[in-house]
Amino acid sequence: MTQTFYGQINPPARLLMGPGPVNAHPRVLRAMAADMLGQFDPEMTGYMNQTMDLYRQVFMTENRWTFLVDGTARAGIEASLVSLVEPGMTLLIVRAGRFGLLLSEIAQRSGAEITTLDIPWGEVATLEQIEDAILTHRPHVLACIHGDTSTTMAQPLDGVGALCRKYDVLSYVDTTATLGGMEVATDRWGVDVVSGGLQKCMGGPPGSAPVTISDRATEHIFARRHVEAGIRSSDMRDGTRARIPSNYLDLAMIMDYWSERRLNHHTEATSMLYAAREAACIVLEEGLQARFARHARASRAMCAGLRAMGLDLFGGDECRMTNVTGVCIPRGVDGEKVRARMREDFEIEIGSAFGPLQGRIWRIGAMGYNAEKSKVLLTLGALEAVLRGEGHAFAAGAGVDAALATYRKE
Amino acid sequence: MTQTFYGQINPPARLLMGPGPVNAHPRVLRAMAADMLGQFDPEMTGYMNQTMDLYRQVFMTENRWTFLVDGTARAGIEASLVSLVEPGMTLLIVRAGRFGLLLSEIAQRSGAEITTLDIPWGEVATLEQIEDAILTHRPHVLACIHGDTSTTMAQPLDGVGALCRKYDVLSYVDTTATLGGMEVATDRWGVDVVSGGLQKCMGGPPGSAPVTISDRATEHIFARRHVEAGIRSSDMRDGTRARIPSNYLDLAMIMDYWSERRLNHHTEATSMLYAAREAACIVLEEGLQARFARHARASRAMCAGLRAMGLDLFGGDECRMTNVTGVCIPRGVDGEKVRARMREDFEIEIGSAFGPLQGRIWRIGAMGYNAEKSKVLLTLGALEAVLRGEGHAFAAGAGVDAALATYRKE
Repeated sequence: MTQTFYGQINPPARLLMGPGPVNAHPRVLRAMAADMLGQFDPEMTGYMNQTMDLYRQVFMTENRWTFLVDGTARAGIEASLVSLVEPGMTLLIVRAGRFGLLLSEIAQRSGAEITTLDIPWGEVATLEQIEDAILTHRPHVLACIHGDTSTTMAQPLDGVGALCRKYDVLSYVDTTATLGGMEVATDRWGVDVVSGGLQKCMGGPPGSAPVTISDRATEHIFARRHVEAGIRSSDMRDGTRARIPSNYLDLAMIMDYWSERRLNHHTEATSMLYAAREAACIVLEEGLQARFARHARASRAMCAGLRAMGLDLFGGDECRMTNVTGVCIPRGVDGEKVRARMREDFEIEIGSAFGPLQGRIWRIGAMGYNAEKSKVLLTLGALEAVLRGEGHAFAAGAGVDAALATYRKE
Repeated sequence: MTQTFYGQINPPARLLMGPGPVNAHPRVLRAMAADMLGQFDPEMTGYMNQTMDLYRQVFMTENRWTFLVDGTARAGIEASLVSLVEPGMTLLIVRAGRFGLLLSEIAQRSGAEITTLDIPWGEVATLEQIEDAILTHRPHVLACIHGDTSTTMAQPLDGVGALCRKYDVLSYVDTTATLGGMEVATDRWGVDVVSGGLQKCMGGPPGSAPVTISDRATEHIFARRHVEAGIRSSDMRDGTRARIPSNYLDLAMIMDYWSERRLNHHTEATSMLYAAREAACIVLEEGLQARFARHARASRAMCAGLRAMGLDLFGGDECRMTNVTGVCIPRGVDGEKVRARMREDFEIEIGSAFGPLQGRIWRIGAMGYNAEKSKVLLTLGALEAVLRGEGHAFAAGAGVDAALATYRKE
C-alpha cells in the first residue's frame, strides 16, 4: 500500500454567506480546543447539565428534557420523528420545500402512514390550512419545518401548538436554520418536540443537534423506553408501547443517558458538547431579542441592496427568513459561474438551490457570526463586481449604498 | 425565565487512563480550531477525499468506500448493521461481553432474525466455534466485536473472513476500541464492513465513526439505495432490495454524499472531519507497526506493574487487548472509593465495569496519546498510594519498579 501524507488543516479564510454552514464564532472554535473528560466524570456531567440549562433558554422553554443528539441536524430530525411516531400512526407533514420533503423521506422509514399538506415552494401554510388538514387526516403527529432554507420562507407557528392540542395531535418542529437567529418560541408556540443544529444562526460547527421535548411528548416517548441487556438492572422496566426502531436515535435512551441515572448509551461527543455549550453562551450573552434584531437588520439591508442592484427576490416579504434570502438569477446570467467568481476572486460563498429552484435562485445568508453590517456590505460589493462582469445592468455601487442607507436609518 | 451565565470551558487536566474516551492528541484539538468551509466547497471535498485515503491506510485496506459516519462509534455500528442486514435475514452475533450484547440490541430493531454465539466474559471464540455456529444457524451476516472493552479481550480475526466467504456470509467487525492501537487488518482478515471511533487509540474526541466497506458489501448495500425526492434527478434509480430503515444511518446515501456526485445528505460535521483527518495523519506519521508496538509495550509494563502489586488480572493473557487491562478489585477494597481517590488526589481516571463485572474489576487503559511510559508509571504510582491507603498489602514501589524494569528490558 502506498503511504500518503497530507499537511496541516489550512482552509482558506472563506466568508460563508450561503444557507449554512457558516463561519463559526472564534470563541466556539477555541472551546473545542479543550481536552477530553471521562463521560461520567462529574466535571463532564456538570457541563452536560449546564448545556441542558442553556438550551432551555435558547429554545425559550421550561422543558426539563432539553439536550443534544450527537449527530448533525438531520440526526435530530430523525431521532424526533422515530421516537414520536409509531408504526401504524398517522403523521401529517407540512411540506413547503426540500426540507418538508425530507421529513417525508425520514418518516417513510418509520412505518407510519404519511399524509401531507403541500404548499407551493415560496409560500407558507395558514393556520386554517393546517386545521383543515388535521380535520381531513386526523393525524397522531404533525411535523413541519420552521425555516426551510430551500425556499428561504419561515412558517409562522403561533397558534399551531394550541391547534394540535385541541385535536390531541403531538407536534414536531425543525428549527435547524432558525435557532439562535429567529425567535424559536417553543413554549409560546405550544409545540412538543423541537430540534435544531449549530451550523447556522448558532454560529457553531455542524455535528450536534439540540432537542427539546415537552412533558406530554416525554411521557409518550418513555412509554416506548427500552433498557439494554448489557446495563439493565432489576429495578428497570421497559415501556409498554412499540420500541423505537433506532438505538442510536432513541430519545428515551438518550434521555436516560442525560438523566441523573446516566445509563450508558453513546459516549457523548465531548468537543461538540463544548462547542454547543459555548455557542449557547454567546447567544445568551448577546441576548435573544438583540440577536434576532441583528439578524433582521442584516436581512433588511441585504434585501435593500439586492433590490437596488435590479435583482428580484424569491418569495414574499411577509414570511421571509431573516437570515437567508432567495435571489432570482437574472436572465442571461450563469448562476454557477457567479458563485465560482465570488468564491475564487472574493473568497465569499453564496448558495445554489435544490430541486425546482436549482439554477433559478441563489441563496444568500447572513447567519450567526456573519449577520453583521460589514459582511453584508462586502458580500453586496463583491456581487456587484461579479454581476458587472457578467453583463447584468445596474447602477454601480447601488447595492452597497442601499444597504448602508438601511443600516444608517435604523 | 431566569437567565444563567456560565464561564468558559475549563476542564481539569485529567489523565484519562480508563477504557476511553482518553485524552486527545493536542494536534487533533488544534485542528478543530480551523474555521468552517461550505460543504460542497472544493477545499472541503478535498479534505473529505484525503480523509478517505487516510482511513484506507488506517484500516489496512484497498476498499474504495472508506469514510466517516457523523456520530459516535455507536452510530457507525448501527449504520453498518442496518445497511447490511435486511428484515427477514439471519444475523449471527458473536457475543463475549457488553458490546457483543450491544450488537444484539442494535440489530433487534432491524427486523432480522438474530442468532448468537455466546462466549463467557473473559474468553474469545475459536474459529471452530464460529464455523460450527455458521453451520448451525446459516446466517446471511456475521457480526462481532474486535476488542470488547467490557472484558478487555480481543477476538482473533485471522481466518474469519475466509470462513464467512466460504459460506457466503457477509461480515461486520466493530473496532471502536482497537483502531489505531491494535492491528485492524481489514483486507487480510477478509471481512466486509469494519467501523471504529476516534476516542480511544486514534487519540481524537468521540463523535466521528470511520467505516470501511468491501466491494461485495458495497454492491449489497447499493442494491438498497434510495435517492430522496428533494434531490432526485431523472437519471437516478433506486435499488431493488428493501430500503435501509434509517435515513441518517443509510450507508448507501452516505456513500452517494462522499462520492463524486456529492448528493446532499447530512451536512458533513466539519470540525469532527478535521479531527478525524488529523488523528489519522498522526497515526500514519508514527507508522502503524510502531504504534501497535508502543501500545503493546505499555500494556506489558502495565500488566507487570499491576501483578507486582499483588493484583490479579481479569481474563487470559493470550487474547488480552493491548490498550486496556481488566484488574480484579482485591477483597475488602471499595473499587469506587479507589477510583474517586485516583481522580480527586491524582487527577487520574481509571474505569469501572459493566454488568456482571461491575464492582469486580477496574479497567485501566493506555490508549493513543496515553499509551506511553510516563503515563503508565504515573498511573501505577498513584494506584500504589491509593491502595496503600485502602489497606491492600504489597511491597511499596513494586508496581512502578516492575513497569520500569519492563520498559528497560525492551
